[in-house]
Amino acid sequence: MNFINQLKQRWENSNSLLCVGLDPDLSRFPDILKRSPKPIFEFNKAIIDATHDLVCAYKPQIAYFAAVSAEDQLQATIDYIHQNYPDIPVILDAKRGDIGSTAAMYALESFERYAADAVTLNPYMGYDSAQPFLSYADKGCVFLCRTSNAGAADYQDLLVDGKPLYMRVARRISEQWNGNHNCLLVVGATWPEQMADLRVVVGDMPFLVPGIGAQGGDVGAIMQAGLTSNKQGLLINSSRGILYAGGGSDFAEQSRKQALLLRDEINQFR
Amino acid sequence: MNFINQLKQRWENSNSLLCVGLDPDLSRFPDILKRSPKPIFEFNKAIIDATHDLVCAYKPQIAYFAAVSAEDQLQATIDYIHQNYPDIPVILDAKRGDIGSTAAMYALESFERYAADAVTLNPYMGYDSAQPFLSYADKGCVFLCRTSNAGAADYQDLLVDGKPLYMRVARRISEQWNGNHNCLLVVGATWPEQMADLRVVVGDMPFLVPGIGAQGGDVGAIMQAGLTSNKQGLLINSSRGILYAGGGSDFAEQSRKQALLLRDEINQFR
Repeated sequence: MNFINQLKQRWENSNSLLCVGLDPDLSRFPDILKRSPKPIFEFNKAIIDATHDLVCAYKPQIAYFAAVSAEDQLQATIDYIHQNYPDIPVILDAKRGDIGSTAAMYALESFERYAADAVTLNPYMGYDSAQPFLSYADKGCVFLCRTSNAGAADYQDLLVDGKPLYMRVARRISEQWNGNHNCLLVVGATWPEQMADLRVVVGDMPFLVPGIGAQGGDVGAIMQAGLTSNKQGLLINSSRGILYAGGGSDFAEQSRKQALLLRDEINQFR
Repeated sequence: MNFINQLKQRWENSNSLLCVGLDPDLSRFPDILKRSPKPIFEFNKAIIDATHDLVCAYKPQIAYFAAVSAEDQLQATIDYIHQNYPDIPVILDAKRGDIGSTAAMYALESFERYAADAVTLNPYMGYDSAQPFLSYADKGCVFLCRTSNAGAADYQDLLVDGKPLYMRVARRISEQWNGNHNCLLVVGATWPEQMADLRVVVGDMPFLVPGIGAQGGDVGAIMQAGLTSNKQGLLINSSRGILYAGGGSDFAEQSRKQALLLRDEINQFR
């Protein structure tokens, strides 16, 4: 099934726009996991089991696995979601971007090795760097557009013909790269005004929204700015705020509480 | 030692501006390697042993390893270079780019897990995405600027205050990100005029130059455009043209011949 349709179905069935980011940082793990042979997988599994009915998607961040040589635990995490909760899409956060033949290898990594349902991508190198991913018509391609960090302004806000670069990126993706209807955009929660402008330009294209919580994004403001007319269109991501809500042996229970609060806060504005 | 100094020393001692890209594609390997338990490492080792005196650097492309779950063979390849040819810098081609805490994890991946001497990076997310890499003062940060592919024009050429975006990227890196003198730029061989403009803007900052051979870049033109006053400043990359010069059991010998030809062609213009 096409990723966007899979996501729409999941939005419908879960009644949630919450995406939980899996950024497993060993230094923040509860003590009870420290002797596990596969602590990252055990941590993720506990979080997933505790939150699966509250989320529209999971987003594992590959850097946290790669930094500690834990590719096998990334694989096990994605497999676990697919086997136990097959309706929940998995977005691999990898921000890949390279030319043709190398991009094809990265697409293999994301879509075949890990069997992710979607991957985050960097658009700076242009169409031929995106095409090998886009050609997987059933997979989602989530392009960086207006990111949530302060440094985003360095290049993304530069004016091109009087409009910011991120707007040009969005327009090109919407008009020229979306032939398979499998594109999404990363739009930071810290910029609700820009999100509103982008919503006008790209119609119902889904936004992956990092930056609430620690980075200061406001849920009400982004719901007003980004929600589509059918009250969907957003994957509002929280990673650390949910993963590290508690530090003890009941960490998964604390994560569930936090996820529930956030899902409900989001749904208040629908 | 600072990466740029390591590179200058290597340019001096090797009398070569040739960088060999290690893009190991199993489907193009000679038959004699097909039964090896570690064919990628064996292939790389043979290429490295056959070309080490002809190169200023090696550039393994991580996607070719990640696509086939061969992180261990990437590690073995980099370790092999460091142990046997300690003067040759290793640039990990990974084009990473993400926000602070995640960027720090990617920096760990590149500089500590793999112990690469430099890594390629995507600047689209701005300064705070680059800083965790830049803060490794002895390591090289090779930023995408004007890439060699056709799609590079999609965003990199857009005019910002009358100048192309890639020029803005170069200027900001040169003036604001290079406090540790550890920045380099990717400038495609297919754009000698743009390379000449960039050389004026960034002084002696080294350029990693993909795009000769298959992509059509001309050695004479880029030497004229990019060489610094001391006849250095360029890492001219060739990957497939060297790796797959021969397909038989003498593949490494054929690669050496090709590397020798290219090194000498480059040196003609110095």
